Amino acid sequence: MKVMTDFIEVESGGRGHYEDITDEVARIVEKSGIDDGVIILHEMHTTAALVIQEADEDVHRDTMDVMDEIVPSNRKYRHIYEGVSNATAHIKNQIMGSNLSIPVMDGKMTLGTWQRIFLVELFEKRRRRVAVVVMGTHSST
Amino acid sequence: MKVMTDFIEVESGGRGHYEDITDEVARIVEKSGIDDGVIILHEMHTTAALVIQEADEDVHRDTMDVMDEIVPSNRKYRHIYEGVSNATAHIKNQIMGSNLSIPVMDGKMTLGTWQRIFLVELFEKRRRRVAVVVMGTHSST
Amino acid sequence: MKVMTDFIEVESGGRGHYEDITDEVARIVEKSGIDDGVIILHEMHTTAALVIQEADEDVHRDTMDVMDEIVPSNRKYRHIYEGVSNATAHIKNQIMGSNLSIPVMDGKMTLGTWQRIFLVELFEKRRRRVAVVVMGTHSST
Repeated sequence: MKVMTDFIEVESGGRGHYEDITDEVARIVEKSGIDDGVIILHEMHTTAALVIQEADEDVHRDTMDVMDEIVPSNRKYRHIYEGVSNATAHIKNQIMGSNLSIPVMDGKMTLGTWQRIFLVELFEKRRRRVAVVVMGTHSST
Repeated sequence: MKVMTDFIEVESGGRGHYEDITDEVARIVEKSGIDDGVIILHEMHTTAALVIQEADEDVHRDTMDVMDEIVPSNRKYRHIYEGVSNATAHIKNQIMGSNLSIPVMDGKMTLGTWQRIFLVELFEKRRRRVAVVVMGTHSST
Repeated sequence: MKVMTDFIEVESGGRGHYEDITDEVARIVEKSGIDDGVIILHEMHTTAALVIQEADEDVHRDTMDVMDEIVPSNRKYRHIYEGVSNATAHIKNQIMGSNLSIPVMDGKMTLGTWQRIFLVELFEKRRRRVAVVVMGTHSST
C-alpha cells in the first residue's frame, strides 16, 4: 500500500474558463506506480471549482451562461467588497464543488470516454492550486 | 490494508430516472471483506449523475422539475448536435456531480436512515457504468 | 498504513445556518497521527449539506438567498407531507452535496487560506451526524 501526494499549479484563464488538467493528473497517477486505488483532487480556493466534463468549449460556455442565469450579476449581494463577480463565484463554487474522487484501476483513472478533469475559474485570472493524493496498491510490493 | 475494485452496470430508465444502486454497492462492500475504510463511486459519463437521496419518487420528480427550471429546454444552447436534452444534461451533471465518497465502518457504508445511492439519468435511456473502489482494513489480516 | 473512523455530532442552528466544523475535523486528523493520506466526510442526512467555503456570514446568507431563488418555496411540490421547507431541502442537498474528500499532507488537511468546512442546515434545527474516515501513512510505522 502506498500514498503519493502532489500539487498542481494552474494559471487560470479568467472568469468562466475551463482549464483541462487531465494530462497532468494522469502523469501523477503514472508516477505514483499505484495500480489499484483512488485519486483525490481538491482545489484550494473558494471562488473556483473542479468538475469532470467533456472537452467541448460549447458545453463549457453553455454551462457558464446557465450558471450566470442561476447566480445573476444583477441582484444585490451582501459580500461585495471584492465586487459582484466575486460574490457570485463564492456561490457557484458551492454548486459546482471543490473536490473529486476517482477510482484508479490497472494504473489508470477510470474516466469514461468523454470525461476530462477541469479546474473552472469562477472569479478572475488567478494562480490556482490543486492538492492531489493517490493511494492504493502497487504490483512491485 | 486491502483494495477491491469493481464496476456496476446500469440500464438507465430514461431521462430523469433515478436508479437505486444501493443494494449492489452494499454487496460490493460486503464481498470486499473490508471493515473500516472508504468506498468511492464514479459514474463514467458526462450526461448522468450520482447522488445520495431518499428513495421517494416524489422527491425525485420534484428534483427533476426544478432542474428543468434551472437548466431550461427553451433557451438557446451552443452544444446542440445531440439535441437540447443532451445540452441540458451536460450542465445538470456539473450541478449534481459525478462521484461519491462514503466512509465504511464495521463492514457497512455509513449511510443515514433515509439515504440511498442513485444513478440519475439526465439524457436518455442508456447503458451506464459506475467504477467502484473499496479501500481499508479487514480483521482477517 | 492506518485507518481511523469517527463521528461528528452537530446541533444545527436552523434553516440556512452554516455550522463551522473545521476545528473538530482538524482534531480528528491530528488524533489519527496520519501524515499523508485523505480524510472523507459524509453527512448522514437528506436535508443538509457539506460544503467548503469562506467563514463569512455574508457569503453564507447570499448563498442561501440564491438557493431559495433556485428552489423557490412558492411553487408546487409533490413531496409535501413534511412541508415545503422540507421539499426544497431535499433538492438543495443534491445541488450542494453530501460528502467531501480532502487530501492530508504532513498531518494537516490541504485547505486553502480561506477554506473552512461547513455543515449547512437546509431544513430545520436538528441533531446532525457526520461520518469521518482518515486513511494514510504515519511516520511511526
